Amino acid sequence: MSEIKQLTKKILDFRDARDWKQFHNPKDVALSLVLEATEVMEHFQWKNNKEIDEYLKTAKGDVAEELADVFYWVLLMSSDLKIDIKLALEEKLKKNEIKYPVEKAKGRHTKYNRL
Amino acid sequence: MSEIKQLTKKILDFRDARDWKQFHNPKDVALSLVLEATEVMEHFQWKNNKEIDEYLKTAKGDVAEELADVFYWVLLMSSDLKIDIKLALEEKLKKNEIKYPVEKAKGRHTKYNRL
Amino acid sequence: MSEIKQLTKKILDFRDARDWKQFHNPKDVALSLVLEATEVMEHFQWKNNKEIDEYLKTAKGDVAEELADVFYWVLLMSSDLKIDIKLALEEKLKKNEIKYPVEKAKGRHTKYNRL
Amino acid sequence: MSEIKQLTKKILDFRDARDWKQFHNPKDVALSLVLEATEVMEHFQWKNNKEIDEYLKTAKGDVAEELADVFYWVLLMSSDLKIDIKLALEEKLKKNEIKYPVEKAKGRHTKYNRL
Repeated sequence: MSEIKQLTKKILDFRDARDWKQFHNPKDVALSLVLEATEVMEHFQWKNNKEIDEYLKTAKGDVAEELADVFYWVLLMSSDLKIDIKLALEEKLKKNEIKYPVEKAKGRHTKYNRL
Repeated sequence: MSEIKQLTKKILDFRDARDWKQFHNPKDVALSLVLEATEVMEHFQWKNNKEIDEYLKTAKGDVAEELADVFYWVLLMSSDLKIDIKLALEEKLKKNEIKYPVEKAKGRHTKYNRL
Repeated sequence: MSEIKQLTKKILDFRDARDWKQFHNPKDVALSLVLEATEVMEHFQWKNNKEIDEYLKTAKGDVAEELADVFYWVLLMSSDLKIDIKLALEEKLKKNEIKYPVEKAKGRHTKYNRL
Repeated sequence: MSEIKQLTKKILDFRDARDWKQFHNPKDVALSLVLEATEVMEHFQWKNNKEIDEYLKTAKGDVAEELADVFYWVLLMSSDLKIDIKLALEEKLKKNEIKYPVEKAKGRHTKYNRL
């Protein structure tokens, strides 16, 4: 079984053991995705780049845990909506290859802003 | 190479070809994570569960694309901060196994709210 | 002094007494705006409309407090960026009057979705 | 009529003319609050403080418009949930006066982080 399928299976086994699928409608799952993403972001608030580097020396584990929560909801939503997230990412990268051709986008902040 | 490492490599190759690493500080990357998560959420706004089911019949590809964007930033941030995201997710699941023991959490909305 | 100016003055007095202006760059203030808005939203997660009505009977004060936090950052950012927020809102309403003409938008969910 | 009541009345008149109250349940309104707050934040992404100052010279009107959207939803939600938002803000400031006493909080980043 592929790595992403294995991780997804662990998430679904965790959920099924608790009978929580009944609560997981797509809208509330999307709210979780947003709420966990903001918890990642909160770690970096009120800090400049140098302070963030310093902060990560001791807090990387906490950030990793919040980022894992985002990943959790990405995989759970993918499973519930029957989205092949690996394929979806590969297709998005292909689209972006066309949208941001190397010769135009290289080192360009302006172009980059619209990614 | 594992599946997640492969996907991460594709993301980094895409970025390196454009020389975009210089723009990717952790704070702005976290903003991308939030912004893409809200784009997933926006698909479900002003719709009840039934309307969402109907909507997904034609719009699943669009939702998949936004969710792929969230996954993109999860993998990119993991790589930049040297977080093993697979391990982080497995450890988070183990923590949650203890936090939400099956015998207490099964089918319980109240307990669930605090996940 | 107008009501909004009075409230803004109270916020600035609170900040100045603590010498906190030095931390308030626009980006981090915008992060606060988002973080507080998500705290409002979190109150309504995993609840349907009926459960929300029930919830608000006892939790309205908590929601009010989070919404006040969003209002706090709206007024603080307006002050810092020298935005006349009352005027900005009135102008936005005028724009929306044109964007959503009554005869086309009345009771229309479709049109509404794009507000 | 007070300034905030006047602005709220304008919002409600706009909504009533379009018969849009039927779509405004608290959860979806909270989503609007978050989505508009992220649109404010997006203006500041991928920019440092100096670039933000420069950016605001020409884009202040755009930021004002997004911030007005957040204010719009704050007032609309306050009205729908019968929250006196002026009072709620004044009470929150009083709470914060106690939570962050001047002698301890003055110029302190650490304390500030937990605001």
